[in-house]
Amino acid sequence: MDRYQFYRVCGVNLDLAIEAHALLRGATKREIPGVKEDKEHHPHATITTIHIFNLEGARALGKTPGTYITIEAPALLRADPPVQEAVAHLLSQKLTLLLQNLKIGPADPVLVVGLGNWQATPDSLGPKVISEFTVTRHLFQYAPQTLPPGSRPVSALSPGVLGTTGIETAEIIRGVVDRTQPKVIIAIDALAAGDLHRIGTSIQLTDTGISPGSGVGKQRIAINRDTMGIPVIAVGIPTVVHAAVIIYETLARTHQSIQAEFWTGDPNWVKGLIQEILKPFGGNLTVTPKEIDDLIHNLAWVVGAALNQTLHTTLLKTKAAIPLH
Amino acid sequence: MDRYQFYRVCGVNLDLAIEAHALLRGATKREIPGVKEDKEHHPHATITTIHIFNLEGARALGKTPGTYITIEAPALLRADPPVQEAVAHLLSQKLTLLLQNLKIGPADPVLVVGLGNWQATPDSLGPKVISEFTVTRHLFQYAPQTLPPGSRPVSALSPGVLGTTGIETAEIIRGVVDRTQPKVIIAIDALAAGDLHRIGTSIQLTDTGISPGSGVGKQRIAINRDTMGIPVIAVGIPTVVHAAVIIYETLARTHQSIQAEFWTGDPNWVKGLIQEILKPFGGNLTVTPKEIDDLIHNLAWVVGAALNQTLHTTLLKTKAAIPLH
Amino acid sequence: MDRYQFYRVCGVNLDLAIEAHALLRGATKREIPGVKEDKEHHPHATITTIHIFNLEGARALGKTPGTYITIEAPALLRADPPVQEAVAHLLSQKLTLLLQNLKIGPADPVLVVGLGNWQATPDSLGPKVISEFTVTRHLFQYAPQTLPPGSRPVSALSPGVLGTTGIETAEIIRGVVDRTQPKVIIAIDALAAGDLHRIGTSIQLTDTGISPGSGVGKQRIAINRDTMGIPVIAVGIPTVVHAAVIIYETLARTHQSIQAEFWTGDPNWVKGLIQEILKPFGGNLTVTPKEIDDLIHNLAWVVGAALNQTLHTTLLKTKAAIPLH
Amino acid sequence: MDRYQFYRVCGVNLDLAIEAHALLRGATKREIPGVKEDKEHHPHATITTIHIFNLEGARALGKTPGTYITIEAPALLRADPPVQEAVAHLLSQKLTLLLQNLKIGPADPVLVVGLGNWQATPDSLGPKVISEFTVTRHLFQYAPQTLPPGSRPVSALSPGVLGTTGIETAEIIRGVVDRTQPKVIIAIDALAAGDLHRIGTSIQLTDTGISPGSGVGKQRIAINRDTMGIPVIAVGIPTVVHAAVIIYETLARTHQSIQAEFWTGDPNWVKGLIQEILKPFGGNLTVTPKEIDDLIHNLAWVVGAALNQTLHTTLLKTKAAIPLH
Repeated sequence: MDRYQFYRVCGVNLDLAIEAHALLRGATKREIPGVKEDKEHHPHATITTIHIFNLEGARALGKTPGTYITIEAPALLRADPPVQEAVAHLLSQKLTLLLQNLKIGPADPVLVVGLGNWQATPDSLGPKVISEFTVTRHLFQYAPQTLPPGSRPVSALSPGVLGTTGIETAEIIRGVVDRTQPKVIIAIDALAAGDLHRIGTSIQLTDTGISPGSGVGKQRIAINRDTMGIPVIAVGIPTVVHAAVIIYETLARTHQSIQAEFWTGDPNWVKGLIQEILKPFGGNLTVTPKEIDDLIHNLAWVVGAALNQTLHTTLLKTKAAIPLH
Repeated sequence: MDRYQFYRVCGVNLDLAIEAHALLRGATKREIPGVKEDKEHHPHATITTIHIFNLEGARALGKTPGTYITIEAPALLRADPPVQEAVAHLLSQKLTLLLQNLKIGPADPVLVVGLGNWQATPDSLGPKVISEFTVTRHLFQYAPQTLPPGSRPVSALSPGVLGTTGIETAEIIRGVVDRTQPKVIIAIDALAAGDLHRIGTSIQLTDTGISPGSGVGKQRIAINRDTMGIPVIAVGIPTVVHAAVIIYETLARTHQSIQAEFWTGDPNWVKGLIQEILKPFGGNLTVTPKEIDDLIHNLAWVVGAALNQTLHTTLLKTKAAIPLH
Repeated sequence: MDRYQFYRVCGVNLDLAIEAHALLRGATKREIPGVKEDKEHHPHATITTIHIFNLEGARALGKTPGTYITIEAPALLRADPPVQEAVAHLLSQKLTLLLQNLKIGPADPVLVVGLGNWQATPDSLGPKVISEFTVTRHLFQYAPQTLPPGSRPVSALSPGVLGTTGIETAEIIRGVVDRTQPKVIIAIDALAAGDLHRIGTSIQLTDTGISPGSGVGKQRIAINRDTMGIPVIAVGIPTVVHAAVIIYETLARTHQSIQAEFWTGDPNWVKGLIQEILKPFGGNLTVTPKEIDDLIHNLAWVVGAALNQTLHTTLLKTKAAIPLH
Repeated sequence: MDRYQFYRVCGVNLDLAIEAHALLRGATKREIPGVKEDKEHHPHATITTIHIFNLEGARALGKTPGTYITIEAPALLRADPPVQEAVAHLLSQKLTLLLQNLKIGPADPVLVVGLGNWQATPDSLGPKVISEFTVTRHLFQYAPQTLPPGSRPVSALSPGVLGTTGIETAEIIRGVVDRTQPKVIIAIDALAAGDLHRIGTSIQLTDTGISPGSGVGKQRIAINRDTMGIPVIAVGIPTVVHAAVIIYETLARTHQSIQAEFWTGDPNWVKGLIQEILKPFGGNLTVTPKEIDDLIHNLAWVVGAALNQTLHTTLLKTKAAIPLH
């Protein structure tokens, strides 16, 4: 049993396509049909773009067909302003690319959704980002004189989490989409990675939206073009790993059979082991670094800066003075 | 010019019907047709119920026809648990009464909306209340075994404010109502009073919803049966007064003509005076006590406790164990 | 290698004496000299009192000599007000007992210290408690008329964490103690348990203060009678477990040798394994439930209520009205 | 009665020396002996430096002798990153100047104190700034290898407010100073201005520390060289005006006598008027804009950036990688 099978057996979602791809290639020792991967190298970051072309590739990776871009920037942990600005710039370039591919024009209305729970630090990335960029949709009605021609209506929503609202997040967003008619959603979410090294250092963009079971808060219903009626770009950053990852790491380093990657034991045994260890809190247990508050603070700034650069090109060019809300 | 005319001239909304009624009766020295007022006295509180029966009364008070119940409990400022519990109990009784009048049954689904901005303390009452009561709507699907028969689906939403979302709050709520089909909305909001003494001491309930221009965050579009398609009960507590109130208090105590309540000067002069004094920040200036954080903390508990008592009668009776979210 | 040895080898501190004692007794299969344990059973809780009499017991348990009281109340996870009130009452009784044993009189000044980081939810218990009880020290100077005779001066401090302040927490507290001369410190802290089941369900009180390396934020210097010059009662509640606990649970269930408790392998091998798995973030990785925000919210109320009952007996008896700050 | 006399009579502290000076010069129509004022003009800001040389000047202005530098940048309200960076740079230049005048060397230890209440938005500037710059004091002991030679130990403290701690803020800080031995304190505080236009647009630096009665939270005991034993630089930004300011503005615009600045009425009458109007909450009433959360968020960034530029010149030059806390 390799890591990939292990995560499948124990129901741990691999939020990052780059992890799914790497694991699968490691397991199969060959290229996956219907999947293509490109790499770019930048001073502070490596960018990997994975295209899943068809259902064969989708089934193999457990991901919807589409584009998955991962910016890997370990230097983000240093909280160094020049690094943060460079990564924000790369993120903005890739966001712009995805919007162009989706034929979203520079003045088309965009809804940014900050998923997660602002009261639980590891899951607060989405709501925190909402404070870090400029919304303009209301100005078209209340202060049109402050907007240069060609400005884009940008709106934002922090829908909360199922446990606090009692409502599926997808239902809340779809309701707001129906009323406000944006052309595209950009959803920001804290992810769970399969590797501790990715916490706070990887940023994934995808044009496929958010899948059920992904994110720290674990969406139940997808937030994607099917459920929303418009395209959904998701920007996700791992802030935790699932506790089962630690179990795997331990097994992998101590069980000959797992290391040999042909472990033939009963998957139910693995499942039972995990359920027994992670019984409290229904297994909803995440591993997170102590300095999670600094991490979220810095990452929210990076994503907010990228959103401003991407969505407000006209405003930034004309140096228009947007008033406070 | 009396206080009532003054507020009209300078565009200050009287959020509390009890204030509008008192001022109007003071000004006219007689009963207002189409308006009836009843008073009850309780150990820690006086409760005033104002019924506006027809359009004549509505026009006179500048309020929609309906029922306005105000609980006045100056002892709330003392942060005394027995007082808080007594007021929560009274609030629950009156909420129950309004729900019964609206023919909302004990198992009918309810959406509680916490209006306001969780990041600005004086406007954070609504979002803070959302953490203080139990939501159950999701449990009907994900954990029905935890719910005794006859339980009520309760959901909650903190829609944010126009300046942060770029979207009219009414639009967000209506979108969610359309998707989730509650039978009634209970909207919690921080209000602006016309009298400093009411901050943190008066609680208004009404079956008429939220009017444009009311609340600390100043709704632009009404949240009521007309805009939502279902009845809206609003629970509001003053946490600020508009800065214009201080101007009036000063004029009233120093201008003979205003004190005599027949001041005949030009309303435009008054309007100009206020615009000049309150020019910065577009006049969006509120007066608030320094200890606003304690105030909001205590009031959120009172409203949350009242909501639990009102909405979860079956749960409370059976002492069912609701899991954390 | 049993769990106890494992934690020693990998440097995981057992914050709870009840765990250290249970593990040690399990390992040695006999009573520990110099240690006495008593149990009481209450409707919603079991209370275990461990007395460590001498250095032999102290060395065996890795704990300072003194009294360790643990209230175990699994029902706390249900967020049920009657349970919360019952536990607060038990906590107050035990706090009162410890104060009496330390010869602290009912009017002696007390400093409550809320350890931890209010910006990182799992570590925010201490600072959140500070908002949940009444301070009175300043009223002796500024509003003595509000205090009945025999009132106690209570003050509070949230010193922050080393990473935010750059100062040892013990240094900050000692500085404040020197200036304000309380007779005793009550320090509130979020702990790391050795067992996931203890998160949010166990409350430990001790008259020995806080040891280096304990708590979520990992104090470097002790906060106890030696370093503070006055007795220190610590109230701690586990809100996380260290990630190494998951490693142990996995090994214990899969390695025959560990289960047989006579595993003879090299401790350095275990140490190396853990360092390899938990390399990112310097190993400062904690496991925490997703609903940590609700957990902390409810626990802060319980501890705050217990502090009010314990410290303000005179105020509560006379129903004096303490003004807001 | 002019504005200056009015504020004296009603006990409103003029936190900004620039306001005190302007008012006094307006009142006296001449230069104030012992006071010198210089102005510099920058693209986004005007900087006024007031030197109070002797006790005559001090008595006239109601300010301690010393240097008061005010950066006036109305463009700060626009939340425009280039403006924010320019103002941060000016603030850093002036902070550097004050430190040099005090003979504080580039490696001398500095304690930054964030005054105010993080739970009440208008008073949360100080605590919010603490998250926006880098502390290094602890690294000298725990990670000296991360620090280039010549680095400065910087520590930080959020002491809380009297109503929450029951302890004079000055006592807490002095206790920490005695234990940690910094060479200088930089204290950040939200101020109350005498003019609504100054909210969020003026930044005052002074080498005289914080006076009793100033700031939103109203310090009771001074935080200055006398009470702390080391020099105290205060950085203050108005986030509110006292409610009495609105009363004055109203009187000034409507009372012939006040406008003529020779109003001869009884100061007790003015005092009585204010006490009557501002009776609730003991007169502790402040006027604040609705968008106070955005304001504080942006200002905290500006001050934090200036502190990093000022205090960490060596770190910035060597591009050392400071780890997260």
